[in-house]
Amino acid sequence: MREQLLETGLDTLHRQGFNGTSVQDITEAAGVPKGSFYNHFESKEALGVAVVRRYVQDRSRHMTILADHEVPPLKRVRRYFAAMAQQAADTGDIRGCLIGNFATELSGQSPVIRQELTHALQGWTDALVPVLVEAQQAQHLSADVSAQELAHLLIDSWEGAVLRCKVEQSGRPLERFLTHTLKRLLV
Amino acid sequence: MREQLLETGLDTLHRQGFNGTSVQDITEAAGVPKGSFYNHFESKEALGVAVVRRYVQDRSRHMTILADHEVPPLKRVRRYFAAMAQQAADTGDIRGCLIGNFATELSGQSPVIRQELTHALQGWTDALVPVLVEAQQAQHLSADVSAQELAHLLIDSWEGAVLRCKVEQSGRPLERFLTHTLKRLLV
Repeated sequence: MREQLLETGLDTLHRQGFNGTSVQDITEAAGVPKGSFYNHFESKEALGVAVVRRYVQDRSRHMTILADHEVPPLKRVRRYFAAMAQQAADTGDIRGCLIGNFATELSGQSPVIRQELTHALQGWTDALVPVLVEAQQAQHLSADVSAQELAHLLIDSWEGAVLRCKVEQSGRPLERFLTHTLKRLLV
Repeated sequence: MREQLLETGLDTLHRQGFNGTSVQDITEAAGVPKGSFYNHFESKEALGVAVVRRYVQDRSRHMTILADHEVPPLKRVRRYFAAMAQQAADTGDIRGCLIGNFATELSGQSPVIRQELTHALQGWTDALVPVLVEAQQAQHLSADVSAQELAHLLIDSWEGAVLRCKVEQSGRPLERFLTHTLKRLLV
């Protein structure tokens, strides 16, 4: 039942936001009695933390692209972001990125969720850094910005493009990110 | 009293988010009777629309920087974003950008607020486009991306950096945007 609450919680919180969702919304969607929620999670906030972890875990499969050493490093970075954009396009996903959604909604409200988001963003950065270092060492990438800083720039610009996708309800901002922003950041 | 509700509403919704704020939170903070709210706004959503407009109006003063034709166009763009970052730093503002906050929280929930956000982003783009066109005509900027598209890229990357500022509770992501992202996008 914990797993059921976690999966339903992820879907509901992703769609409706944290403050737009009640515990009852989640238990009803999961088809479990409301009281049972608290046997598995101390609070909606505790579910929020678990949901961020699950979301990060779900998305980590794209990261295998980054580890494919047969492919030149910058091509891996481009393929990685393209795969994530493709997934959003395939599923017609206009819920945006859960990390970005929670970042704007909850950073000022929940220290524990903010901490989990910091952790998630750090993990994302850590996955990109070695590939960018490899590109710098192969001189495919200038070294005027550290790999760490560049990873931040890529992630922040990606999140901004996803945010715009939500407003426009279109995948066009992510296409622009892939075509133009990546090209300009990866120099 | 409408003005008081609007100003207090802007502040409260900016800090706590839309779904994290009740009408009562706003009337209490404004020191007016709860019932009086509905004499001035049909709903919290109607206040949300008015708040986006007021926020855009408040921020439009920075746009005079973009219109100063004594200064080369790309320098105006850099000064414009630097002025916005400076304002955030001066006020220790970790509420993020109201447009970005509402974009992630409300795009799927409120069509009228989403429409107002689209309008706000379009206005922002429209303010940047002529300056970018001027830079392209002066050959300070390559023309492989249209001024319209480039304005989108700048705004999206800015929003992503502001989002990260909320998570990190630091102005560092905006400094990175000014130092590195702007430099790389404005080529």
